[in-house]
Amino acid sequence: MTTSEGRKAIGVDFGGTSVKIALVDDHGRILQRKRIETKDLPNQDAWFDTVCKGIDELKGDCDVRGVGVGVPGFVDHERGYIYELPNVPGWTGVRMSSIMEDRLDGLRVRIDNDVNAMALGECTFGAGRTYQHAVFVTLGTGVGGGLLLNNRLYRGAFSMAGEIGHVSIDKEGRVSPQGKGGVEQYVGNRRIVEHAVRLLEEGRTSILDDLCGGDRSKLSPKIIKEAANRGDGVAYEVIDSITDSLATAFASITYILQPQAFIVGGGVAEEAELLFKLLRLHLNERLSPYFANRIEIKTAELGSEAGMIGCATLALIE
Amino acid sequence: MTTSEGRKAIGVDFGGTSVKIALVDDHGRILQRKRIETKDLPNQDAWFDTVCKGIDELKGDCDVRGVGVGVPGFVDHERGYIYELPNVPGWTGVRMSSIMEDRLDGLRVRIDNDVNAMALGECTFGAGRTYQHAVFVTLGTGVGGGLLLNNRLYRGAFSMAGEIGHVSIDKEGRVSPQGKGGVEQYVGNRRIVEHAVRLLEEGRTSILDDLCGGDRSKLSPKIIKEAANRGDGVAYEVIDSITDSLATAFASITYILQPQAFIVGGGVAEEAELLFKLLRLHLNERLSPYFANRIEIKTAELGSEAGMIGCATLALIE
Repeated sequence: MTTSEGRKAIGVDFGGTSVKIALVDDHGRILQRKRIETKDLPNQDAWFDTVCKGIDELKGDCDVRGVGVGVPGFVDHERGYIYELPNVPGWTGVRMSSIMEDRLDGLRVRIDNDVNAMALGECTFGAGRTYQHAVFVTLGTGVGGGLLLNNRLYRGAFSMAGEIGHVSIDKEGRVSPQGKGGVEQYVGNRRIVEHAVRLLEEGRTSILDDLCGGDRSKLSPKIIKEAANRGDGVAYEVIDSITDSLATAFASITYILQPQAFIVGGGVAEEAELLFKLLRLHLNERLSPYFANRIEIKTAELGSEAGMIGCATLALIE
Repeated sequence: MTTSEGRKAIGVDFGGTSVKIALVDDHGRILQRKRIETKDLPNQDAWFDTVCKGIDELKGDCDVRGVGVGVPGFVDHERGYIYELPNVPGWTGVRMSSIMEDRLDGLRVRIDNDVNAMALGECTFGAGRTYQHAVFVTLGTGVGGGLLLNNRLYRGAFSMAGEIGHVSIDKEGRVSPQGKGGVEQYVGNRRIVEHAVRLLEEGRTSILDDLCGGDRSKLSPKIIKEAANRGDGVAYEVIDSITDSLATAFASITYILQPQAFIVGGGVAEEAELLFKLLRLHLNERLSPYFANRIEIKTAELGSEAGMIGCATLALIE
């Protein structure tokens, strides 16, 4: 995607206890940033006051094109409206864009789901910048996604398209409120750890117990990745299983959308050479050669800044 | 979708042994039609001569906007090029649009995959005409699909997006050249019959043997639908299983694309009230209530004319 030249925008990455704000230029570079603690603010009014004051300070005399806000939940992008943030109480039915625009002297405010914002950032300035059609996937507590189709973020009829975590990989699989067999029931952080613990409880030999100091409650995807890199059989089996589950969902998505690439980010995907190697292998097994030869899998490039940059991109390009 | 007013176009529905041609107006109505037998034509040159002569005759003095051709296979829509038609030998690497344009005095020729053309027809003039985002699905020998996103046919990076038949519903499921557990391995015509035969071979009581005159090789989806309507337990179980498999794929597609509706056509979906009822039921079980309440499932309206009308639509609107 391309942006208007010589312009800047402010990205606001909404978190449950703090907000990260950045001034971003039209090359996706962060020029200035600040973090605002919000957990002790008494109410939503105070939240808007404090965050908008922070935006004003960061903006200074700079001519910015607008503000983009990414929130963890359901929004109506067109209307700038928050339906609900499942993990942040009190944010149901909020006219966020107009409330902020009022406090920011009419500066234009765009909002979106946070994963959509990250997808937009990665596909404009990061690993997806050369594609017209790409699928952004983030691996963490859950599995999130965003779709770049025909060079634009595709939001679907309800602003939340790309909910890849709920793509079923097993008709009779694990049940969740969203259905059966959703891929995030197999590859979310907690599921990864549970899988390793299950294998350990079967009495399998592994260095995982050493790495977590004998306390299995301390096991994490990071430790499992490290063990797999060191040749641990149990850890390898877990990574192999995750990647095959992901590959199943990716193959389905490929047949539906025929993207040029998957861009994979999030904690689980960081420093994860083995994970990407096995993902590629399993995806190839699950696609006809025509597609296997054409679909790329790339690591996201913007890391922990993807949120801020992506949010700013909402205001830079749309 | 909307078309240019007062214009007409010619739709060419390419079959392996015959070609159906229709003159279609901008309300999607067929004004005139003809069928050309092509199986005895000596070569491709003769095919082009005969079909283009047929188009010329049908066109007469009428001012047409162009010709749309739907072919059963892989095309490059932009270049008007056939990569391959898997079930029609000899059609590999054919510059179809320019060959036909040369024979038709420069009349514009657009080509596409036949299911894409049908999807476009249904979403312009049929059951999908009121939606911006809809998924067209055709149930027959296999399961095909086409995507209407943001009011346009979405083709993906390789002109063949919407290959719903290969969406996996079971990570460890039936193997095909396209992967594992593709939904068409469970709901294609042949699979439906195999499923019924399997249940009969287990010794289940059923009226199916009566309906096919004791010759199980004569069993068809049509007979199975009829038996299910008459309360036959075996037939009901088959329809229940098909619809649950389809619902699994539809749920995945819903989470990815958030369409407003699925438009379902093809032989299996004709006169299939029970099938639609069970499909709705199973889809609701597999979606969060938010989506279950919003996604519609509709029967395709253009029936056997969907091909010709859809092909003409390629030339009417794009």
